[in-house]
Amino acid sequence: MDGLRNISFQPGIAPHASGSVLVCFGNTQVICAASIEEGVPRWMKEQGVTGGWLTAEYSMLPYSTAPRKTRDSTRGKIDGRSMEIQRLIGRSLRAGIDLEAIGSRTLWIDCDVLRADGGTRTASITGASVAIALACNSLIREGKIAKSPITRRVAAVSVGVVCSEVLLDLDYLEDKDAEVDLNLVMTGDMEFIELQASGEESIFNEAQLSKMLDYGRRGIRELVKKQEEVLENLS
Amino acid sequence: MDGLRNISFQPGIAPHASGSVLVCFGNTQVICAASIEEGVPRWMKEQGVTGGWLTAEYSMLPYSTAPRKTRDSTRGKIDGRSMEIQRLIGRSLRAGIDLEAIGSRTLWIDCDVLRADGGTRTASITGASVAIALACNSLIREGKIAKSPITRRVAAVSVGVVCSEVLLDLDYLEDKDAEVDLNLVMTGDMEFIELQASGEESIFNEAQLSKMLDYGRRGIRELVKKQEEVLENLS
Amino acid sequence: MDGLRNISFQPGIAPHASGSVLVCFGNTQVICAASIEEGVPRWMKEQGVTGGWLTAEYSMLPYSTAPRKTRDSTRGKIDGRSMEIQRLIGRSLRAGIDLEAIGSRTLWIDCDVLRADGGTRTASITGASVAIALACNSLIREGKIAKSPITRRVAAVSVGVVCSEVLLDLDYLEDKDAEVDLNLVMTGDMEFIELQASGEESIFNEAQLSKMLDYGRRGIRELVKKQEEVLENLS
Amino acid sequence: MDGLRNISFQPGIAPHASGSVLVCFGNTQVICAASIEEGVPRWMKEQGVTGGWLTAEYSMLPYSTAPRKTRDSTRGKIDGRSMEIQRLIGRSLRAGIDLEAIGSRTLWIDCDVLRADGGTRTASITGASVAIALACNSLIREGKIAKSPITRRVAAVSVGVVCSEVLLDLDYLEDKDAEVDLNLVMTGDMEFIELQASGEESIFNEAQLSKMLDYGRRGIRELVKKQEEVLENLS
Amino acid sequence: MDGLRNISFQPGIAPHASGSVLVCFGNTQVICAASIEEGVPRWMKEQGVTGGWLTAEYSMLPYSTAPRKTRDSTRGKIDGRSMEIQRLIGRSLRAGIDLEAIGSRTLWIDCDVLRADGGTRTASITGASVAIALACNSLIREGKIAKSPITRRVAAVSVGVVCSEVLLDLDYLEDKDAEVDLNLVMTGDMEFIELQASGEESIFNEAQLSKMLDYGRRGIRELVKKQEEVLENLS
Amino acid sequence: MDGLRNISFQPGIAPHASGSVLVCFGNTQVICAASIEEGVPRWMKEQGVTGGWLTAEYSMLPYSTAPRKTRDSTRGKIDGRSMEIQRLIGRSLRAGIDLEAIGSRTLWIDCDVLRADGGTRTASITGASVAIALACNSLIREGKIAKSPITRRVAAVSVGVVCSEVLLDLDYLEDKDAEVDLNLVMTGDMEFIELQASGEESIFNEAQLSKMLDYGRRGIRELVKKQEEVLENLS
Repeated sequence: MDGLRNISFQPGIAPHASGSVLVCFGNTQVICAASIEEGVPRWMKEQGVTGGWLTAEYSMLPYSTAPRKTRDSTRGKIDGRSMEIQRLIGRSLRAGIDLEAIGSRTLWIDCDVLRADGGTRTASITGASVAIALACNSLIREGKIAKSPITRRVAAVSVGVVCSEVLLDLDYLEDKDAEVDLNLVMTGDMEFIELQASGEESIFNEAQLSKMLDYGRRGIRELVKKQEEVLENLS
Repeated sequence: MDGLRNISFQPGIAPHASGSVLVCFGNTQVICAASIEEGVPRWMKEQGVTGGWLTAEYSMLPYSTAPRKTRDSTRGKIDGRSMEIQRLIGRSLRAGIDLEAIGSRTLWIDCDVLRADGGTRTASITGASVAIALACNSLIREGKIAKSPITRRVAAVSVGVVCSEVLLDLDYLEDKDAEVDLNLVMTGDMEFIELQASGEESIFNEAQLSKMLDYGRRGIRELVKKQEEVLENLS
Repeated sequence: MDGLRNISFQPGIAPHASGSVLVCFGNTQVICAASIEEGVPRWMKEQGVTGGWLTAEYSMLPYSTAPRKTRDSTRGKIDGRSMEIQRLIGRSLRAGIDLEAIGSRTLWIDCDVLRADGGTRTASITGASVAIALACNSLIREGKIAKSPITRRVAAVSVGVVCSEVLLDLDYLEDKDAEVDLNLVMTGDMEFIELQASGEESIFNEAQLSKMLDYGRRGIRELVKKQEEVLENLS
Repeated sequence: MDGLRNISFQPGIAPHASGSVLVCFGNTQVICAASIEEGVPRWMKEQGVTGGWLTAEYSMLPYSTAPRKTRDSTRGKIDGRSMEIQRLIGRSLRAGIDLEAIGSRTLWIDCDVLRADGGTRTASITGASVAIALACNSLIREGKIAKSPITRRVAAVSVGVVCSEVLLDLDYLEDKDAEVDLNLVMTGDMEFIELQASGEESIFNEAQLSKMLDYGRRGIRELVKKQEEVLENLS
Repeated sequence: MDGLRNISFQPGIAPHASGSVLVCFGNTQVICAASIEEGVPRWMKEQGVTGGWLTAEYSMLPYSTAPRKTRDSTRGKIDGRSMEIQRLIGRSLRAGIDLEAIGSRTLWIDCDVLRADGGTRTASITGASVAIALACNSLIREGKIAKSPITRRVAAVSVGVVCSEVLLDLDYLEDKDAEVDLNLVMTGDMEFIELQASGEESIFNEAQLSKMLDYGRRGIRELVKKQEEVLENLS
Repeated sequence: MDGLRNISFQPGIAPHASGSVLVCFGNTQVICAASIEEGVPRWMKEQGVTGGWLTAEYSMLPYSTAPRKTRDSTRGKIDGRSMEIQRLIGRSLRAGIDLEAIGSRTLWIDCDVLRADGGTRTASITGASVAIALACNSLIREGKIAKSPITRRVAAVSVGVVCSEVLLDLDYLEDKDAEVDLNLVMTGDMEFIELQASGEESIFNEAQLSKMLDYGRRGIRELVKKQEEVLENLS
C-alpha cells in the first residue's frame, strides 16, 4: 500500500496560540500550536547567539490511547520516547525557518496527541509546519516582521515493512507488527532533513531501505501539496 | 447580567475514552474525557473499601492562555491551583455517582483546557458530568453493568461581584476584576454539593452572598437542562 | 452543640520568629509563626507590584497523628490537601492586612500542627492572625514601620452536620462522620472572607447551610474576643 | 568552661506519639518523638533480618533560626547536613536498644528543632533516648512486649576549641567561631558510640583531642544523670 | 578521509562486571560494562514475556569534557540527549542477542564516557558489543547457559559531511562543523540495524546519503574485524 | 595487620580535567579528577567571601560493586551515604589549600569509584589530594597563579577492630565484619583534620581508640610518602 491515509488540517483549533491546526493522519489527531514569546532562552544570550529560537514539546493526552496513558506531570517527568520525539520535532522544524529573521523571539511548538493511531510524530511535524506558517503570518500582520521567515515547507511520513511488504503511513496495528520502521522528514523540494530507520531490534537490508525511501518520497510530495492547499485557502 | 454565556457540548471529542465531550462556556473550551480502568487504587484494597473509584485530573494546555503557560511536566509538578481544582472536580463528581454500582473499576476523569476565558473549573465539572454519563452508557452497552450508576446530574457555575454588580458565569476579564468570587456545584434537584465563596483577599457581606446564590441557582437550572438535552439526543 | 472547644493561645512558642503562638482548639495544637524577611518575591518586582507580601506554609508534623504521618520532605512534595490549606490560610490572612503598609518585606506564616484533632486549618488561621499582630508590633518597636498595618482581625471556625445535628468546631471523630462540612473565615466585624461548604461527596440543602452559618458566626465572635484578650495582655 | 548549659526534658509534648519529650540544651529546643509502627521496612524482609528497626528523621523547623530557614518540602529534598545528622541519630540510638526484642515493629524517631542555638544534633540524640524509653514503657504497658529492650542509655554532647580554649556544649555563637568541633555520643557506662572530630577545614593536635574528650565525658555523665531523673519521675 | 581513528579495546577495566572493556575511538574513551542480574523487569512478568532482558545506561563523566559537565544526579534527571543515546544503545544491542537464550536474567549495559572527542555513542555500541560477548562467556563458564546467545556482532560508526567533504568517524571538532551527521549501526554480516541521518537543522541530498553509507560500511567492516581480534585473543 | 594494602597512583586518567589520578588501595580503584572553573558559587558573592572555592562529588559507578549498584541519576537523587562522603571529602581537602590564593575560581573534585573493595572514601581523599596538586601545577604553568596554593598534603586511611584485632586499611570483607570503624584524615605533618570513629551501632572503649589512632598514624605517614613520590616523578 503506497498511499497515505486520509489527511486533513483544521486551522484555529487553539485560538490563543498565534497559529494552530488540528492535523489528522487517518485516525491519528494532533493539536499543533505555535505560540510566540518575546525574548529568547538564557543560553542564547550567554553564548551571544542572535536572532530567535524555536523549541517543541510533544505529549500524548491521557485519553489518546486505550487503555488510558498516565499523565507526564503525574509521573513527574517526561518519558524517554516523548523526549526523543520532541527533540526530533524541534530539530526538523528549525530546518525550515530562518531564525535570524524572527528577531529576539521564541516560537513554542506544542504537539498534543488527541487520538493516537500510529504516526503521531510525523503528523506532529507536518501539522506544526502549518501552524508555524500561520504564526508567522500573524507576526507579519501585526507588523512585527516584514516578510516571512519560512525557508522551506517541512513534512514527515512513516514507512515500514510489515510481513515483508513495504507500507506507507502506518497505523498503530501495522506499526506494532512492522519489521522495519522508517521515519522520513523532508522539504517541499524533496531534500532530506532527517532519516531514521530501525530494524526494530532486528535487521534490514539495502533493498528494503531503497524501496522504503521511494514510498516515503511519494508520501512527502502529497503531504506538502496538502499543506500548500490549506495555507492558500486561508490567505 | 444574570444569564449564562453560550453553552455547548460536543460529544466524542476523544474517541479512545469511554465517554468524552468538548464543553464550551462562551470562549472557554474544555476537553472532558472519562476513561474506565479495570481495578481500583491500592489504598481501597488495603482499607477493604468495596466498589469502584472516580478520580479527576485537570490541566491547562500550554496554548490555552496568552501568553503561553508552561507545561506541568516541564516544571515537574502540578501547581497548587490545578491541584485544588482537580480535587474539587473529583469530589463534586463522586457526589453524583454510586461507586458501589460500577464494580471494581476506576473512572479517570481528565479535564484539559483548550481555551481559557474564565470558569474553567465550572465548565470542567459540568462537561465531565456528561462524559461520565456517556461512559456509563458504554459500560451498560458492553454488558459490564446492568443499570446506570448515575444518581444525580452535577453542574457548576461561577458567580461574582464586579463593580458592586452581581454577574453570572464570569469570563476572564470579569473574573479578574471581581470583588467576590463564588463557585457553586449543585445537583439537578437543586441541592448543594459544594459552595466556595471568597472575598478575593478582601470581604463580602450576607446580602451579597444571598444574591449570588440566587443567580447561581438560576444558572445551574439552565445548565442541567442543556446536559439533559445533549444526552437525550445521543440515546 | 453550639459551643467552641477550649481555646487557648500561648505566645512566644518560637522565639526566633518575629511573632509566634501555640494555638489550641481543644486537643488540636498548632505552632503559628510569623517571620519577617526583607525583600519580596521576584514576581512582584517583575509585575511592578509595590508594598509587601504575605505567604503561608502549612504542615502536619509526623507525630501529630496516630498512626504517624510520612514527612512531606520524604515524599519529596506537599500533598494536595496541605497545598489547598496553605493557599486558604494565605488568602485569608492577606484579607486582614494592608500589605502596602509593611514596605518591601515578606511575612512568612508557618503553621505546623503539633497535635491533630479536627479543625487544624481553622486553628491555623485564627492563631496565625495573632502571630501576625505580634510580628507587626515588633516591626513598630524596631521603628521599621510607623503604625500597625493590621486592618481586620481574622478568625476561622468549622461547622458540620453530624447525624443530622449541626455542630460547631468539630473534633476529629465528629469531622470524620460529618455529612456536611463548612469552614468559615470572617473578620472581627462579622464580614465574610471565605466560605467553603461541602456535602462531603454527597448533598446538603439551604436550611442546613443557613443554620451552619448561624453557628459559625457565633463561634467567630467568641474567637475574636479571645484573640483580643491575648493581644491586650501582651501589650 | 567545662559545664553544660541548662538542660531540661518536658515529656508528653506530642501526645499522639508513643513517647515524646521537648529537650532543651540552653536555648536550643528540640521536639523528640518516638512513634511505633507495626511491621518493618521491605529490605529487612528481603534480607531475612528478624526483629524490629529504628530509623530517625531530623529537621529544622523554618522558624527555628533567624533569618527563617526554607522548608525541606519546599526545596523538594533534605539538605546534606540534615541527612548526615539523621543518619548519626539513627546509628547512635540503635546502639542502645535490642531491636530483636521489640518484635516486627519500626520505631520512628522524629527530631524537629523548634529553636536552634548550637548542639541541635546532640540535644536530639539525648532527648530521643528518653522518648524511646517512654515509647518502650508504653509497649510494655500495652502488653506488646514483656520487658524493656533498652540496653544502654545514650547521650551526646559537643565540645569545641574557641580562641584556643576548650568549651563544653557550645551555643551557636561559640560553635560558629570554633577552631575544632567534636561531637561525642556515649553510653551511661561511659563507653564510646560515636566520636566525630573536625578541624573545621583546618587542623588540630593530639593534646587538644585529649582535653576535649575529658570535657566531653564530664558532660555525658551529667546528661545521663538528668535522663535517669526525668524517667524516674515518670514511673 | 575514509579511515577510522585509532581503535582499541582494553578488556577487564571494571572487574566487578561480568564483562567490561575500555574502548577508544581516537581520543574518545568509554568504559563499557555488562553486568548480569538474576530476574527481569516487572513489565515482562506482567506481560508474560519469557526469556531475559537487556537495558543500557549512558552517561558522560563530569571530567570527560572541558569545561566540566554537570553530573546528572546533581541536576536530578538525565538530559534528553543522554536518554536518546541510551535508548539507541539498548535497541541496537538487543538486535545482536537471543534474549530467550539467556534465561530469566537482565543484562545491564553501562557506558560511561571517560573522555569525549566525538563518536561517544558509536564507540559505546561497538565497545558494549564486546563487553556483552565477555559477559556471555562468563555465563557459559559458570554453567548457567549452555551456548552463546550472541546472534550477531554489532558495531557502529559515525559519518559526516564537513565542508562538503564526506568524513568517517568524526572527532569533536569535525562533528561540531558537520553539515550532515549520520550514525550507522550494522551487523558483522553488513546488515542494517539502525540508520540515523540528520541535516543538522538544515538539509542533505541523496548523493550525499549514498556516499556516507559507502564510507560507513567500510568503517563497520574494519570495526567488526577488530572486535573479532580482541575476543579471539581472550579465548 | 598494621600494613597498608598495595597503594598506587596513575596520573592523567582523565585528560580533560586539569589534574587527575587513578588511585588504588588494594583492589579499590577510584578516578579522582580536579577540574577548574572560572567563577565561584553565587553564595560566595552574596556573602562577600573573596578567593576561590573547592567542592567535591563522590559516586560509585554502577559496575563498581557486584551485584550492580543502581545509578544515582536513575533514582533521581544522591543517597545519604554518598552525600555524607562527598561532604567529608570536600571539608578535608579544603583544609589543605589556601582558597584565597587560587583567585575567583572553583575547583571541582570528582571521585568516581571504578572498583569498590573497602576504603573508597579514604582512597578518594588521598587520590584527590594528588589530583589537586596536579591541577594547581597546571594553573601555575598557564600563568594564572604565581605560586602553589597547596598548604598541606592531605591523606586518609581507615582503621578497624575485627574479631578484637586492630586492622589498618580494611578491605570490604574486613570492613563488613568490623566491630569498630575509624576514618582518619591527617596532614603530612601528622596533624588531625578529621577523625570519625563509630561503634557500628555498638560500643568501643578508650584502649581501642588509642590503638586505632596509632595504627592510623602509621598508615598516614606511608601514604604521604607515596603521594610525594608520585608528584616528584611528574615534576
